[in-house]
Amino acid sequence: MGFHVDSEVGQLRRVIMHRPGLELKRLTPTNKDALLFDDVLWVRRAQQEHDGFAEVLRDRGVRVHLFGDLLRESLDLPEARELVLGRVFDEREFGPLATGHLRAAFETMDSAELASALVGGMTKREYLARHPEPLSVRFHVWEQDDFLLHPLPNHLFTRDTSAWIYDGVSVNAMRWPARQRETVHFEAVYRHHPLFSTGHARPFHTWSRGQECYPSTIEGGDVLVLGHGAVLIGMSERTTPQAVEMLARRLFAAGSAHTIVALDLPKRRALMHLDTVMTMVAPDVFTQYAGLGMLRSYTIEPGAGAQDLKVTDHPPEHMHRAIAAALGLGAIRVLTATQDVHAAEREQWDDGCNVLAVEPGVVVAYERNATTNSYLRDEGLEVIEIRGSELGRGRGGPRCMSCPVERDAVGG
Amino acid sequence: MGFHVDSEVGQLRRVIMHRPGLELKRLTPTNKDALLFDDVLWVRRAQQEHDGFAEVLRDRGVRVHLFGDLLRESLDLPEARELVLGRVFDEREFGPLATGHLRAAFETMDSAELASALVGGMTKREYLARHPEPLSVRFHVWEQDDFLLHPLPNHLFTRDTSAWIYDGVSVNAMRWPARQRETVHFEAVYRHHPLFSTGHARPFHTWSRGQECYPSTIEGGDVLVLGHGAVLIGMSERTTPQAVEMLARRLFAAGSAHTIVALDLPKRRALMHLDTVMTMVAPDVFTQYAGLGMLRSYTIEPGAGAQDLKVTDHPPEHMHRAIAAALGLGAIRVLTATQDVHAAEREQWDDGCNVLAVEPGVVVAYERNATTNSYLRDEGLEVIEIRGSELGRGRGGPRCMSCPVERDAVGG
Amino acid sequence: MGFHVDSEVGQLRRVIMHRPGLELKRLTPTNKDALLFDDVLWVRRAQQEHDGFAEVLRDRGVRVHLFGDLLRESLDLPEARELVLGRVFDEREFGPLATGHLRAAFETMDSAELASALVGGMTKREYLARHPEPLSVRFHVWEQDDFLLHPLPNHLFTRDTSAWIYDGVSVNAMRWPARQRETVHFEAVYRHHPLFSTGHARPFHTWSRGQECYPSTIEGGDVLVLGHGAVLIGMSERTTPQAVEMLARRLFAAGSAHTIVALDLPKRRALMHLDTVMTMVAPDVFTQYAGLGMLRSYTIEPGAGAQDLKVTDHPPEHMHRAIAAALGLGAIRVLTATQDVHAAEREQWDDGCNVLAVEPGVVVAYERNATTNSYLRDEGLEVIEIRGSELGRGRGGPRCMSCPVERDAVGG
Amino acid sequence: MGFHVDSEVGQLRRVIMHRPGLELKRLTPTNKDALLFDDVLWVRRAQQEHDGFAEVLRDRGVRVHLFGDLLRESLDLPEARELVLGRVFDEREFGPLATGHLRAAFETMDSAELASALVGGMTKREYLARHPEPLSVRFHVWEQDDFLLHPLPNHLFTRDTSAWIYDGVSVNAMRWPARQRETVHFEAVYRHHPLFSTGHARPFHTWSRGQECYPSTIEGGDVLVLGHGAVLIGMSERTTPQAVEMLARRLFAAGSAHTIVALDLPKRRALMHLDTVMTMVAPDVFTQYAGLGMLRSYTIEPGAGAQDLKVTDHPPEHMHRAIAAALGLGAIRVLTATQDVHAAEREQWDDGCNVLAVEPGVVVAYERNATTNSYLRDEGLEVIEIRGSELGRGRGGPRCMSCPVERDAVGG
Repeated sequence: MGFHVDSEVGQLRRVIMHRPGLELKRLTPTNKDALLFDDVLWVRRAQQEHDGFAEVLRDRGVRVHLFGDLLRESLDLPEARELVLGRVFDEREFGPLATGHLRAAFETMDSAELASALVGGMTKREYLARHPEPLSVRFHVWEQDDFLLHPLPNHLFTRDTSAWIYDGVSVNAMRWPARQRETVHFEAVYRHHPLFSTGHARPFHTWSRGQECYPSTIEGGDVLVLGHGAVLIGMSERTTPQAVEMLARRLFAAGSAHTIVALDLPKRRALMHLDTVMTMVAPDVFTQYAGLGMLRSYTIEPGAGAQDLKVTDHPPEHMHRAIAAALGLGAIRVLTATQDVHAAEREQWDDGCNVLAVEPGVVVAYERNATTNSYLRDEGLEVIEIRGSELGRGRGGPRCMSCPVERDAVGG
Repeated sequence: MGFHVDSEVGQLRRVIMHRPGLELKRLTPTNKDALLFDDVLWVRRAQQEHDGFAEVLRDRGVRVHLFGDLLRESLDLPEARELVLGRVFDEREFGPLATGHLRAAFETMDSAELASALVGGMTKREYLARHPEPLSVRFHVWEQDDFLLHPLPNHLFTRDTSAWIYDGVSVNAMRWPARQRETVHFEAVYRHHPLFSTGHARPFHTWSRGQECYPSTIEGGDVLVLGHGAVLIGMSERTTPQAVEMLARRLFAAGSAHTIVALDLPKRRALMHLDTVMTMVAPDVFTQYAGLGMLRSYTIEPGAGAQDLKVTDHPPEHMHRAIAAALGLGAIRVLTATQDVHAAEREQWDDGCNVLAVEPGVVVAYERNATTNSYLRDEGLEVIEIRGSELGRGRGGPRCMSCPVERDAVGG
Repeated sequence: MGFHVDSEVGQLRRVIMHRPGLELKRLTPTNKDALLFDDVLWVRRAQQEHDGFAEVLRDRGVRVHLFGDLLRESLDLPEARELVLGRVFDEREFGPLATGHLRAAFETMDSAELASALVGGMTKREYLARHPEPLSVRFHVWEQDDFLLHPLPNHLFTRDTSAWIYDGVSVNAMRWPARQRETVHFEAVYRHHPLFSTGHARPFHTWSRGQECYPSTIEGGDVLVLGHGAVLIGMSERTTPQAVEMLARRLFAAGSAHTIVALDLPKRRALMHLDTVMTMVAPDVFTQYAGLGMLRSYTIEPGAGAQDLKVTDHPPEHMHRAIAAALGLGAIRVLTATQDVHAAEREQWDDGCNVLAVEPGVVVAYERNATTNSYLRDEGLEVIEIRGSELGRGRGGPRCMSCPVERDAVGG
Repeated sequence: MGFHVDSEVGQLRRVIMHRPGLELKRLTPTNKDALLFDDVLWVRRAQQEHDGFAEVLRDRGVRVHLFGDLLRESLDLPEARELVLGRVFDEREFGPLATGHLRAAFETMDSAELASALVGGMTKREYLARHPEPLSVRFHVWEQDDFLLHPLPNHLFTRDTSAWIYDGVSVNAMRWPARQRETVHFEAVYRHHPLFSTGHARPFHTWSRGQECYPSTIEGGDVLVLGHGAVLIGMSERTTPQAVEMLARRLFAAGSAHTIVALDLPKRRALMHLDTVMTMVAPDVFTQYAGLGMLRSYTIEPGAGAQDLKVTDHPPEHMHRAIAAALGLGAIRVLTATQDVHAAEREQWDDGCNVLAVEPGVVVAYERNATTNSYLRDEGLEVIEIRGSELGRGRGGPRCMSCPVERDAVGG
């Protein structure tokens, strides 16, 4: 038994997902932009939709670990508590007068309460319902309904915060403040949760050092494990070239991969991550948004010396060829539904490309992207539809909401 | 048989609604803001939800006229065609070289096609699929996927474009360009459609002169027919004080009303119309958004001379008292669910206040506003829930999507 | 004696300019964006700079008419008062209850006061200092420091509101509400001021019908009178293709011009008008902003029938050729200073291209655009520098601030 | 001889200022917002204005140190180079493949070049003019005119990056990325420049740990050294409560101060720092922007234990009383020019309040704020006017552009 992700489309065995909770009830029209959401969600319905998604995966033999459980179980262990609370309750955030009081108050919570507060956040009013007010300027200045700990609604998108690449995991430095506290939660899980830490799990690599790598940020939505030792990475608004270089060094040093193709994505929120415009659906088949166009790309390979890298630049028109070469193929097949520009833009927005392969040629997609889904079926894919009227408001689809931790190679 | 709306909460007999169509398929992430939408909609699901809403009304004995049918049937008549096409195809929009060609092309359409194109808009590419390109700078400059006639997705909100007030209708000058072409469609319907124009309908007043009143704009979402000759109007981002004065003069001159209470709403998009923060649910009962606060108000009554008006200013704290006085009551009952500020802001956003009364004490509401709905039930109201995962993305609820054309007085 | 502008660079004889006044003291950080300014100005210094500019022109033999004087003198005449006040005090703006009172109050002013109030605007507080409060909802709703008549700071840019083209003037429909009230002021001047209306002036054409052409808008900053019967027009954020077509018809019908070249400018505020990125400096010489690139263009000529136009499209690479052809030349000379992209963008922002020719090869420019000015000198032009630390904050240069009403043809 | 600032208005002896240079030539309409400027500046004129300001100070006996000189002289020392280059060339910014090459290229520069490049930034094109291209994805992805090291135009405002408070200096963690690289420059100067480090200078305290304190940020524009052991601090968009607490601990531990009054400023860019709305002009006299209103305040004093603080909250109406109490006075005098709201907003924007006292009752102000200046004179102050047409576009006045390093106590 062990954790590894050896491809993007091989048989999926295990994923981490996060069932929506308190953190999404915190979204309002006023704070949603800062929290990176385009709309508020009806949480009860979002939970039903998420349960439906998890059920589909279980039906396909995928084991689903819920992040909320993993975090709670980790927080039963003193080392994990120490790691998380030490990182969260920093004097530079809360000031010398309040930090100790706040941390002490959080220490008294049982693990379920604590996990809920860490992810769901806490207002001053909620804190004062159970604890006395510390004599602190930092604390006094907050209004009653201000968050002293802001919620983390983007935990929903487990794809991004950590990313398994072959026999290791990158626990990522996140680009925006709204997500940066997510990272230490995954550090706690991977370091301390029995599932990952005890003797019966095969050891795995850690490709990064978490949020301290900032501003060398990388997010899992930009990372596609192509298989056969190749990785495709989108350099986006959130994933930097320097992070790609650092990851390359570590992957190559461990012998876990031998080629990275890095795409120079436009730096726009609408094309937030590579997987919102391009995903892999079968061993040599990709789906791509019509409006993406061709992009400059860079092939990175091990260089002459131990720490050296070889970088080869490609003009935009060679993008697909560079990906194929990394896979040892002459060409790849790229599927783009024929629709007018307005319809294509609509379905990209609704995550039409953001499908999750559960095995080669079988993908999970939102039902609302009817045109894309029926096109994919015509092209020979099996498309399993899930509901996402609420989930989709966060601009993330099935791939965004799943973090594979065990997936087979293709034909391996 | 005749058309009149004598209250906000009396037995509802007939409404005009608009089933979502082509115009909503036109919404994209890029154009949605200019078209006043916060998100794109899944149109097939929105249609199902809208059908469900219409069904609920029919079950309650309400006759539902679909705006698409009314427009199409009106366009069967040459006078209505002339009115609409003459207004739409103006040289100041399309230039001297293209206007005639475009109008001629639209003249050739049958009424169903024409209604669809007028509401759904048309791109240059669509035009050129069936007509030769006119030799016109205006036309040449458009890109293939530009709209030469932009879509009217806000026709969904039939509440706003025209508003029945007692025994007449105000066909409104609309505030934003995205909605201004809606007005002439309603002028065509009310002037020429057999339902409204032939001998068997009782004559009715027209309280306005359509878009030519601009910038004296008023929108139906700001107008509540309180009953007993009183009207409540929100002066919002979209409804101006001058329009209120003009309406007052006409209503008083006809003897159709004797008091208008005008509220000075904050001029913000989130409080777009009065009915997004305050609606009437029973003869002396209102529901009000917690975050609204109290507003300055003005009571307008007939003055000494024929055209004179008497204006009385009230400080914010007398807002409810001014409304009650207009109704001849000592007080009104105002329902505001107790929730934290974040939850309250969420439900206002999701049109928690935007309910439609079908008879005194019975309202139609979106199911997603669970807290508000259960509070209203506790307060003795019957709440009929409808689905609105898609419909609600336009920031409009059951009241916004219905234009009553026949409603009884309360206790009448 | 007569008014006519027969070229862009021939000997300049007479201009209308507007000396900054009260209207610019009204600009604040809060209202500047709505009033189309990027910054507030120090008005006393702006006046000194403007006086310096006028002085330079007078030194070159140009007669300077100040718009403030022309407006004031026009308002001495009852017809001009009637025209302006009738247009300004419209019930659709001020409501039936206040309009008459406001107009009556303005009627009592002498012409100097009236001109100042029309251009400088008036707050509710200022009105109430001298007049009783009308019983009007429209009026009551204003706060004390709200403008009941907003100021017109863009009168500074006399270039735009009216544009002389050969032997006639186009009094323009303006694109943005902040400038629309300017138009009627120029209508009053050209129709009623003795300078333009009495027997001793040669009659001239009027190429437009003022603001009622809206949304067929055109602004003078987009119009270059190339000479020899040719006109160059930028279709920008503010100048529409339909207005170009309308103007073409009138110019050709009068025989005043025979060719218009229309450029398809990007619709961005930074490239507000053609003359912010391209102006003519000598008979066949233009200065052009490095960042502009080449644009699609359209040559418009008289067609077969009386009202017909012939339209010829050109691809971007033929832009300069199309301009040359309209002038009957094989080629034009286009001057673009060599600088890095940052410096070029800075000088475009500071109106480096927005020079005013006073005779062939002699231009007035802001002193701050040192690189551009020295480059133009190296290319053989005479550059007269004026100060504009304050004036330039409105994003307009010497050409924007001058409306030639008499200019010779080149070589004429 | 030593460095200390014992008051806000005592005799000023020495300041650090920064003469505008290359970094301001880098500002463009496109990048200015990210670089925190509202407009581009004409650098040659800005330099003249800055020279004029320095001259005024020298005339008053103030010794002016130019930051550019201090930085250059510091960079002559290997320890200072090591400190700065080590901090700037971080793999997390530039990636493992380029960082070493870039640092090596900068190492080869002499101190004048290096200081210029660190403050003025460098484009890829400039780098490649003298150095070969490193084989790095991070480097390849940049466009030719992108900045590999962005310019630091806000060095102009020496007030903010470091702040002398009694017998020590706070080298501040800055709020926005556009200014964060400034901090290490001042660390290098204060630690290594002979002026501050050698035997003949009296030792001084350092109240902070530079940028590593982030997000506990504080900026000098928010800090007023009231004198007599009291400090007034604005908690603004850029200065946090936690930083105030940290500073309090250190000041009190050293016995350098005994009271801090912290004001809860609105968190808006227009009220960027306290000194843009309130400054001290004479021992018990302040000038205050009319639109500021009264603010909640907090008095912080040493507590019972060594590290303890005592915090006392005050309601808005006691703001002035709290300041007076910290000074041991019964009341303070607050000067606010009487003007209409529009004029007041204009002069605040133009830094009307941002005056620099050179001795009690003698202040340096921009000449453009005529109303404020003449009011201050009427109130008995001496106002020395300086020109600032260009300098003022960065939204900073005389106080912002000066960092006192030696100032007497009042009455001392």
